[in-house]
Amino acid sequence: MASRLTAEREAELYESVLDLLREVGYDALTMDAVAARTRSSKATLYRQWGNKPELVARALRHNKPVGLHEIDTGSLRRDFHELVGLEDDCKLEKDSALMRGLMRAVHDNPDLHQALREVLIEPEITGLDQVLRRAVERGEVRADCPALPYVVHMLVGAFVARQLVEDKPVDKAFLGNYIDAVVLPALGDPV
Amino acid sequence: MASRLTAEREAELYESVLDLLREVGYDALTMDAVAARTRSSKATLYRQWGNKPELVARALRHNKPVGLHEIDTGSLRRDFHELVGLEDDCKLEKDSALMRGLMRAVHDNPDLHQALREVLIEPEITGLDQVLRRAVERGEVRADCPALPYVVHMLVGAFVARQLVEDKPVDKAFLGNYIDAVVLPALGDPV
Repeated sequence: MASRLTAEREAELYESVLDLLREVGYDALTMDAVAARTRSSKATLYRQWGNKPELVARALRHNKPVGLHEIDTGSLRRDFHELVGLEDDCKLEKDSALMRGLMRAVHDNPDLHQALREVLIEPEITGLDQVLRRAVERGEVRADCPALPYVVHMLVGAFVARQLVEDKPVDKAFLGNYIDAVVLPALGDPV
Repeated sequence: MASRLTAEREAELYESVLDLLREVGYDALTMDAVAARTRSSKATLYRQWGNKPELVARALRHNKPVGLHEIDTGSLRRDFHELVGLEDDCKLEKDSALMRGLMRAVHDNPDLHQALREVLIEPEITGLDQVLRRAVERGEVRADCPALPYVVHMLVGAFVARQLVEDKPVDKAFLGNYIDAVVLPALGDPV
């Protein structure tokens, strides 16, 4: 899709989109502002990304360089902790502020919800399914474990409730504890 | 606080606030609109509730007539299922639409977040803690079970992820399954 831009230029552009998103929010983010910030033409932006929801979704995806499916340590517990360990606390805090702003925008913009679902949510869920399937194949989790379809719900709850209920940002220590206290026990406590 | 209004009149007023909230959202809901809809004076509204965040938080609390702490069947599994059984699917769907709109408003209005925390979130968490404490006292859940502080996170995740990830409304069947598949196993599968 982005064949006319170098990878470096594309990365730069995505970073600018995320900066704008943090500064002004989704509603006030315009293709004009992105064009001005990145010194590119609007025609280029539309040719490469089609529309604003698609551009924002791609920029967010770019922000997650490691796909979940690539994590494969040989143990589910280590897979989850490796995932948490890849993040740093500062990025986690910035990302969860971004996500809270986006949940608001998603509510008003079904086209953004659709783009996020296709570009970000569904690939992440597929990646998570692969990690879980490997744990089942290794015999760590029973294939009929009733919690398997709900791992994503548990993880989303960690992020949302931490802020909503506790008014604290998500950090690595919290996520690590939550995985050991909730996610793994619900899956039958694999080694 | 509402000593000058009859309980019936107060209930009527709260219902109108929730109707307005569903119709126009938090930002567009004004004390003028509440006064007009309920044929009361703005002076009365301010005298009784102080301000808009407080009025909205009280109206939402009124919408939850059974406090969690009142549920006490003698078994944690039955307590949770009784809680789910009290709702009907239509109300669950209306309530979760309301909650999604509010999460957006909370992001922009720290005074609303504060009022919701005091009037709604903290009492519900205290109620949940009482239900869990009784289960520990009955010996159903170990006192040092690491998932105990995270029950609220698991429940919030059920509501948010159902809509965000699956794009489906929360209903009784889903919540019942989630409790059996996730919440109770994480707590060591009490009877």
